[in-house]
Amino acid sequence: MKMSRYVYDFFEGNKDLKDLLGGKGANLAEMTRMGLPVPPGFTITTGACREFLRTGALPAGLLDEVEEHLRLVQARLGKRLGDPADPLLLSVRSGGKFSMPGMMETILDIGLNDATVLGLAEHSGDERFAWDSYRRLIQMFGKTVFGVPGEEFEGELAAARAAADVTTDADLGADALRDLVGAYKKVFAAHTGRDFPQSPHEQLFSAINAVFDSWNADRAVLYRRQERIPQDLGTAVNVMAMVFGNRGPNSGSGVAFTRDPATGRRGAYGDYLPNAQGEDVVAGIRNTMGLAELAEIDPKSHARLLSIMQKLEQRYRDLCDIEFTIEDGTLWMLQTRVGKRTPAAAFVIAAQLVEEGLITLDEALLRVSGEQLAKLMFPSFDTAAAPEPLTTGVAASPGAAVGAIVFDSAAAAAATGPVILVRRETNPDDLPGMIAAQGILTGRGGKTSHAAVVARGMGKTCVCGADELEVDAAAGTLTVAGRVLHAGDVVSIDGTSGRVYAGPVPVHPSPVVRYFEGELSPLGDPLLAAVQRLMTHAGHVARLGVHANADTGADARRAHRFGATGIGLCRTEHMFLGDRRELVERLILATGTEEREAALAALLPLQRDDFVELLAAMDGRPVTVRLIDPPLHEFLPPLDELTARVARAEALGEDPGGDGRLLAAVRRMHEQNPMLGLRGVRLGLVVPGLFAMQVRAVAEAAAARLAAGGDPRPEIMVPLVGAVQELEIVRAEATRVLSDVPGAPPIPIGTMIEVPRAALTAHQIAMSADFFSFGTNDLTQMTWGFSRDDVEGAFFGRYLDLGVFGASPFETLDRLGVGELVRTAVERGRAARPGLPTGVCGEHGGDPASIRFFHDAGLTYVSCSPFRVPVARLEAGRAAVDTGPVSDAR
Amino acid sequence: MKMSRYVYDFFEGNKDLKDLLGGKGANLAEMTRMGLPVPPGFTITTGACREFLRTGALPAGLLDEVEEHLRLVQARLGKRLGDPADPLLLSVRSGGKFSMPGMMETILDIGLNDATVLGLAEHSGDERFAWDSYRRLIQMFGKTVFGVPGEEFEGELAAARAAADVTTDADLGADALRDLVGAYKKVFAAHTGRDFPQSPHEQLFSAINAVFDSWNADRAVLYRRQERIPQDLGTAVNVMAMVFGNRGPNSGSGVAFTRDPATGRRGAYGDYLPNAQGEDVVAGIRNTMGLAELAEIDPKSHARLLSIMQKLEQRYRDLCDIEFTIEDGTLWMLQTRVGKRTPAAAFVIAAQLVEEGLITLDEALLRVSGEQLAKLMFPSFDTAAAPEPLTTGVAASPGAAVGAIVFDSAAAAAATGPVILVRRETNPDDLPGMIAAQGILTGRGGKTSHAAVVARGMGKTCVCGADELEVDAAAGTLTVAGRVLHAGDVVSIDGTSGRVYAGPVPVHPSPVVRYFEGELSPLGDPLLAAVQRLMTHAGHVARLGVHANADTGADARRAHRFGATGIGLCRTEHMFLGDRRELVERLILATGTEEREAALAALLPLQRDDFVELLAAMDGRPVTVRLIDPPLHEFLPPLDELTARVARAEALGEDPGGDGRLLAAVRRMHEQNPMLGLRGVRLGLVVPGLFAMQVRAVAEAAAARLAAGGDPRPEIMVPLVGAVQELEIVRAEATRVLSDVPGAPPIPIGTMIEVPRAALTAHQIAMSADFFSFGTNDLTQMTWGFSRDDVEGAFFGRYLDLGVFGASPFETLDRLGVGELVRTAVERGRAARPGLPTGVCGEHGGDPASIRFFHDAGLTYVSCSPFRVPVARLEAGRAAVDTGPVSDAR
Repeated sequence: MKMSRYVYDFFEGNKDLKDLLGGKGANLAEMTRMGLPVPPGFTITTGACREFLRTGALPAGLLDEVEEHLRLVQARLGKRLGDPADPLLLSVRSGGKFSMPGMMETILDIGLNDATVLGLAEHSGDERFAWDSYRRLIQMFGKTVFGVPGEEFEGELAAARAAADVTTDADLGADALRDLVGAYKKVFAAHTGRDFPQSPHEQLFSAINAVFDSWNADRAVLYRRQERIPQDLGTAVNVMAMVFGNRGPNSGSGVAFTRDPATGRRGAYGDYLPNAQGEDVVAGIRNTMGLAELAEIDPKSHARLLSIMQKLEQRYRDLCDIEFTIEDGTLWMLQTRVGKRTPAAAFVIAAQLVEEGLITLDEALLRVSGEQLAKLMFPSFDTAAAPEPLTTGVAASPGAAVGAIVFDSAAAAAATGPVILVRRETNPDDLPGMIAAQGILTGRGGKTSHAAVVARGMGKTCVCGADELEVDAAAGTLTVAGRVLHAGDVVSIDGTSGRVYAGPVPVHPSPVVRYFEGELSPLGDPLLAAVQRLMTHAGHVARLGVHANADTGADARRAHRFGATGIGLCRTEHMFLGDRRELVERLILATGTEEREAALAALLPLQRDDFVELLAAMDGRPVTVRLIDPPLHEFLPPLDELTARVARAEALGEDPGGDGRLLAAVRRMHEQNPMLGLRGVRLGLVVPGLFAMQVRAVAEAAAARLAAGGDPRPEIMVPLVGAVQELEIVRAEATRVLSDVPGAPPIPIGTMIEVPRAALTAHQIAMSADFFSFGTNDLTQMTWGFSRDDVEGAFFGRYLDLGVFGASPFETLDRLGVGELVRTAVERGRAARPGLPTGVCGEHGGDPASIRFFHDAGLTYVSCSPFRVPVARLEAGRAAVDTGPVSDAR
Repeated sequence: MKMSRYVYDFFEGNKDLKDLLGGKGANLAEMTRMGLPVPPGFTITTGACREFLRTGALPAGLLDEVEEHLRLVQARLGKRLGDPADPLLLSVRSGGKFSMPGMMETILDIGLNDATVLGLAEHSGDERFAWDSYRRLIQMFGKTVFGVPGEEFEGELAAARAAADVTTDADLGADALRDLVGAYKKVFAAHTGRDFPQSPHEQLFSAINAVFDSWNADRAVLYRRQERIPQDLGTAVNVMAMVFGNRGPNSGSGVAFTRDPATGRRGAYGDYLPNAQGEDVVAGIRNTMGLAELAEIDPKSHARLLSIMQKLEQRYRDLCDIEFTIEDGTLWMLQTRVGKRTPAAAFVIAAQLVEEGLITLDEALLRVSGEQLAKLMFPSFDTAAAPEPLTTGVAASPGAAVGAIVFDSAAAAAATGPVILVRRETNPDDLPGMIAAQGILTGRGGKTSHAAVVARGMGKTCVCGADELEVDAAAGTLTVAGRVLHAGDVVSIDGTSGRVYAGPVPVHPSPVVRYFEGELSPLGDPLLAAVQRLMTHAGHVARLGVHANADTGADARRAHRFGATGIGLCRTEHMFLGDRRELVERLILATGTEEREAALAALLPLQRDDFVELLAAMDGRPVTVRLIDPPLHEFLPPLDELTARVARAEALGEDPGGDGRLLAAVRRMHEQNPMLGLRGVRLGLVVPGLFAMQVRAVAEAAAARLAAGGDPRPEIMVPLVGAVQELEIVRAEATRVLSDVPGAPPIPIGTMIEVPRAALTAHQIAMSADFFSFGTNDLTQMTWGFSRDDVEGAFFGRYLDLGVFGASPFETLDRLGVGELVRTAVERGRAARPGLPTGVCGEHGGDPASIRFFHDAGLTYVSCSPFRVPVARLEAGRAAVDTGPVSDAR
C-alpha cells in the first residue's frame, strides 16, 4: 500500500464511498461487488482532483497507478489500448459526490486513432461504425479537452450532409465519415495548433486532466456557490471499457426503473432500443420499445435484467434507475443510482417499501419531503381537458391559475373577477398588480427575475420568460406565433410545468388537500393511503409541535382540520381593517384623552367577539394573540395619494375638506422607514390604553368562553421587544388589566423575538417572558438590514445570480446569521428560565429546510399558514428521525 | 463575631467600604478613624437593607445590634436617649453607594417627646429651640415615615403665624410653637389613626424602617432604572448624635471646599452662618460669611477647620467638600466627600495635585473626563456683556446660539441669516426648521422632550421648558412677563445654563478650542496648561488611535490640527451634492449603458480632485474612503413634493414637463424603507460601473499625489456588507481596477461592519477584508430595529422617562446589545485574520462612555467628527490607565 492511493478498481469500492469515488464510481463499484456484469474499469478519486486543484498538476504517481489499473482491465478483457488489430476503447466520465451541471461529463471511444480505427472496423466488421466512432471522439475530445467551438464541427457535418445529399447523419456512409474525420482533424489542428493526439495514452491522460480542470469552470463554480456545495470537494473520474449496443440486431441499449417513477406502481419499467448506443435512447431518434418487447426478442437478457433489478432494489432498498447495454446478446450494466421520482411516487414507494419489509417507517419518512408534499397540495390543471399549450415558459412559482389578461396594476385593481397580470417583465411598479392577480406571466426573465422572486415570495403562481410571447401593453395585446390575445381574454398558466393555455382550463383541487379536509377517504387510493401512513408516523415521532397562523375563525378551523395543535400567531391588526377602519381613524385622530378612550371603547367589543370565535375554534389548545404591531399610519391613506388629492383641490380653488385634516395627520405621523418606526411594543408604550384595550378583550373573551363551558387557552404576545424594560412595563400593565377582569383564566404573557437585540439579551428578556416566539421575517430583515418589500425585486434576482444567496433568506432561514441569533436566544432564554417554550411564527415556520433547523435548535413548535401545516408536520417528523447531517432529499 | 453583622460603629469603617456602608457612612467612618471630631454614631449596612427588601421585615437581631451600638454612643456622650433631664437626640440619614433623589434622606431630632422636650428646654436654656425642634421632628417624621401630606403641616404653620400676627416662622415664640406641636400631633393622629410615638426607640426603629422602605419609592426606582443603578443594592442608614449650631453666638454651621470648585484655585473656600443649623446655610435665609470672617470671630475653630481640611485633602488626594457645625465653640464634622467642581476646575485641580505630588499623571487623567473637555470646547456668552436674562429654561443641549426668532420650519428655511426656532413644543414637522436653525427654544417639555432629544442628537443648542414663555405662533409673538418679542427679533440662548436673553449677546469662542487651533498659548494660563499637560499624557498612554470623519480638505486640516492621526471615514456621497447633483441625476435617469457611462465619466475627475485634496491634507496618514452608501433616490426630489407639483400642473391642464419624467423615475425607485433598501454594497452590485468609477478616482488621486512627491495612504471601504460573497465580488472588481491604474500604490480594501449579520459572520468576512470599521449608527438602528430619524422624536423621550434607556443608544453605545455584536466581530475577525485593524466611524466614536467600551473591546482606533477629536484623545488615554470598572466620572 502506497502513502497516497488515487485509483480504485471497480471491485475495490462500494456504494458508501461517495466522498472518495463520487456517486457514479461508488455505484459502479457496488454493482461489481454484487457480481453484476459491469465492464471492467476503475475510478480516480476525488482526492487526486483536490491535489490537482491545490498544485495545478496531476499528483505524482497518479499516471503510474492509472497504467497499473489499466493493465488489469486489459488482462481481464484480453484487449489492449492502442492495439491496431483489436483495440480496447475506453470511456472517461466525471462523477463528483453531487451531480453538477457545467462540469465536463463524458468522452467516449478513447483509444481510437488512424491505426486503431482500421482494427476496430476490421474486428467489428462494421467500417461505418468505426469511422463514426472516431469522428465522435475527435469532436468530443476537441470540444471538452481543448475548447474547440462545437459549431465548427457542426459546420463540417452539415457540409458533409450537403455533399452526400442526405438529411440525417445516420444516412452518411463510411466513406463520407472517413472524409469527415479528415475535416475534423483539420478543425482540431487549426484551433489547437497541434494535430489530434494519436497516442491513446495521451488521449486518456488529457481527458483525466480536463475532467479535473472542469471543476473550476465558471458555471460549475457558480452552481456550487448557489447550491452551497463546498468549492474544494473535487470530482472523481471513472474510466471504463467501452461496450457497444450498436453492433447489430443482437445488441441494444436501454434505461430502466425498478418501479414506475411517475406513479410508484410496482414492476420494472423502461425503454430499450435495439442496435443503438445509450445516447440514442435518450435522444429519442427512433421509437423505443418497452421491456415487455425486449422479453420477446431477447428473453435471456430480459430475465437477467429483471433479476439484476430486483437485486439492486434489495441492495439499495429503494427505487433504482439503470443504464444497460446488450452487446451481441451479452448484458452489461453501465450505471445505476437511486432514481428520481415524482412527489406522488415518492410517497407511494416509501409506503410500499415499508410493506415489503425493506425499510422502516422512520426511513420511509426520510424518503419523502415537505417540498414534495407541498407540490401534491397545489391544485392542478385537468390536462385531459386542456388544449395544446399556447407556449411554455419557465416554471417559476407553482400552482394553476386562470384569469382574464390585464396588462398593468391599475387594470388588475379595477377588475372584478380573477386576472392574470401579463408583462414583458415586471418591476416594483407592478407590485399592486401582482398582489391583485391570480397569477403572473412574463415574456422575459428566468427563475431569478423580479417576477419570479416576488411571486415565489407571495406564493403566487408564475410563469416567466415565455419568450415566444410578444407583449404590447400599450396596444393591449399579447401575440404568440401570430395568434393575438387581448386584455380581458382568459388564459390559464401552470406554474409547475411552465405551460400557458389560451382560455380557461378546468382546475382540479388536489386530492391530498381534499383528504386533509376530510372529503376523500384514503381507502383504495395508494397515494392517500401512503400520505396517511407517513403523516401518522411523523406525528408519532415529531418533537416539534405545529401551530398555525390564523386571524379568523375560518382560518382556525381549517388549521385544526389540517392538524395544527394551536394558533401560534393571531395578528390582531387584521381586526382593525374593513368597516372598523373608521374607528381606528377616530383613534388615531383623537385630540384628547376622551376621544381616544371613546374610540378604544368602541373597538373593545369587536375585538372581544373575534377572540371568542378564535378560542372556540381552537378550544383546549393554545391561541397566541399578538398585540397590535404595525405603525398606526398604515390604517390611513398613503401620503402621496393624499398629497395629490389636496394639491389638486387647492390648484382648482376647492376646499380639500376632510382630506386636509387627514393630510396633516398623515404628515405628522409620516415615517421615513416605517419598518423601523413607531410600531409594536413602542406603540403600546406611547399610545395610552391601546394595549390595555386588547388585553382586556382577550381576557373578557376567555372569561366568556369559560362561562360557556369551553376550555379557552389564550396567550398574549408582545411584538418588537428589544429590551427587557419594554416588556416589564407592558407586563405590569397587562397583569393589572387581567386581574381586573372577573372570571378570566390565567393568561401567559410572552414576547416575540424579532429584533436582533432581543436575541442578544434573551437572558434578560426571559425573566419577564412566559414564552418566546421568533418573528423570523423581521429578524431576517434587521439582521441583514434589508426590507423584504423593498429589496426582493430590486436586487434579490441579481444576488441569486451572483451566488450571494443560495435561496432567498425570506424563503429559507439564513442559518449562519439569523440562525445564530435564534440559537443564541434559545440558549440564553432557557438558561435564565429552564423549559421556556419557544416557537417561530414567521413564514419560515412552513419551510422544510428551515423547520429542520428549528428542530435542531430545540424549538417547541413552529407556526405557519394553515395550508402549510401538513408540510410542517411531515418535516417535524422527518427532523426527529434524521440523525445525519441536514438532508437535501427533494 | 456573629454570623451576620448589620451595624458598624463609625470607628470601625473606612472610606473604601462604600458598598457596605454607603458613601456617607464610609466617609464618616474615615473621618472618625482620622481622629477628626465627628459626633458619635454608627451605620446600618446596605446588607441589612437588602435583607429587608428580600423578606419585607427588619432582619432578626438587627434591633439588638442597634441597641448595643446605641449604648456605646450614650456611654461616650454621657447622655441617654429618652432621658427626660438631658436627652440624647439623634439624626437618621439614608446613604447608598450612589446618592439618589427620591429616597428618604434625613430625620433630625429623634428622641424628642412630650417629656424630653422639657428636658431639652431646661438643659439648653432655650425653650423656643426645644419646641421648634419638637415640631420639626413631628413634621419630618410624619411626612417621611407615615406619608402625612406636607401641606397639612404647612397649613397649621400658616395658621399659627396668622394667629401670632407675624410673617416668618422665626418670629414665632416658644408658646406659639408649643401650641403648634399640639396642632401637629392632631394632624398626625388624624392621618395615621394613632398618636405620635412617644417612645424614642420606636421613633428610631420606625425611621430606620422608613429609610429602607424608601428604597422602593417610585421616584427612586425610576431614577435607578434611568441611571442603570442595580435595583438590589440597598441603602445604608447613618445614626448620629445631634449637635447644634443654633445654640447662640458661639455656635454656627457651615459648608466648605478645600479649593475653589469653580476655578480650581488653591485655598479653602466656604460659607459660615453663626447661630444656625446646616439647613439654614443652604436655604440662604441670612447672608453667610466667608471663612476669613470666621477666623476673626472664632480663630481656634477656624484654625482647626483649616487643619482638618488639609488632612482630608491629603487623605482623599482630591478636592473635598465638608459640612461642619460649631456648638458652643466646639467644631464638629458632619460630612465630607470628594467635591463636585466645574469642568475647568477639574482640569486645573488634577494638574495641581500632580504638581503637589499627591497623585500621578495616570490618576490625574481619571480626574477629568471627555464630557468635561467637551463642555470647555463650547463657545460661551460674554456674561459680563449680557443683559439680565429674559427667563431661564431647562439647559437641554449645550452651546451658545444667537439668531432671529422664527416660529416655523418654513420661516427657518426662508431666512437668510441665523435664526432661533421658537415653539411651544416641537414635533416631527419641525425637523427641517431645527436643522436650519442655530438653536431651539421651547416653552414646554423637559430634558426628554422631543426638542431636547432631537437637538442633543444633532449637537444643536437647545433651551426647552422655559415655561414663562408664551409662544403664539399664529400671532408671531413671544411674550415673557408682559414683554413682547416678534418674529425677526434677535434672541440669544445659552444651552449650558438654560438662560434666554433678548437681543444679541457677544459669543466668546472657547479658549480651549483656540488653544487647539494654535491661536492661544498655554503659558501662564492655568486651564490651558492643565489641558496641555493632561492631553499630552493621554497621547502617551493611549492604546486606541483617534481618526476623524472628514469629507473635505478643510475638515481634514482641522482634524489634523486637533490631533487626528488619519481619516477614518470620508463619505463620498457628499461629493455628489451641490452643482454635481445634475450629473448624478443624469446617472440615475440613464436609460442605457452609454448614458450611464458618460455620467460616470463626468463624475470621475471631480471625485479624483476631491481625493487629491484630502490625501494632501492627511499626507502620510491613512485616509479611509467609503464607497457610496445612500440610496440613489436621495439625490432626487422627494416623492410627495414631485407628486404635488405634477398633480397641480395636471389639474390646471399644464404640461408637467421634466417633472413628469422625474416623477416616474422617483416612483420606480421609491422605497418603503430606504434605510433597508438598495444602498451600500447592494448599489455597487446592481449599478454597473459605479463602484469602479470611485475606486478608479481614488487610485488616480493616489497616483497623482505620489507623482507630486506626496505620501498618500488611501484605503477603500465597502459599506453595508452582510455576506462575505458581496465583499468578494466588489473586491475582485476593485482589484482589477486598481491594477489598471498606472503608478497607484497598493490600496487596502476593507469593509464596514454595520449590519448585524456582518458581525455574526465576521470570521468569513475577515477573509476578504483588510480592515473592519464599525458603523455603529446603522448597527444600532438594525440591532434595535429602529431608525434614528423616525424614532428619536417619536418615542425616545418617553423611553428615557420610562427608564427603558439610560441614554439614547445613538449617543452612547448600547453595550449589552450592539456592544456584544462589536465584541463578537472583533473576536471572530481576528481569529480568522490575526492583527486585523478595526475601527469605528459612527458618531459613538466621539462619545466618552462609548470610547471606553471600544478600548475595552480592543479596537485599533475610533473616528469622530474633527471637533470631537480632542475629547476622543483624552478618553483614549483615560481608558488606557483605568483598570477598574467603567468610570462614571463626569
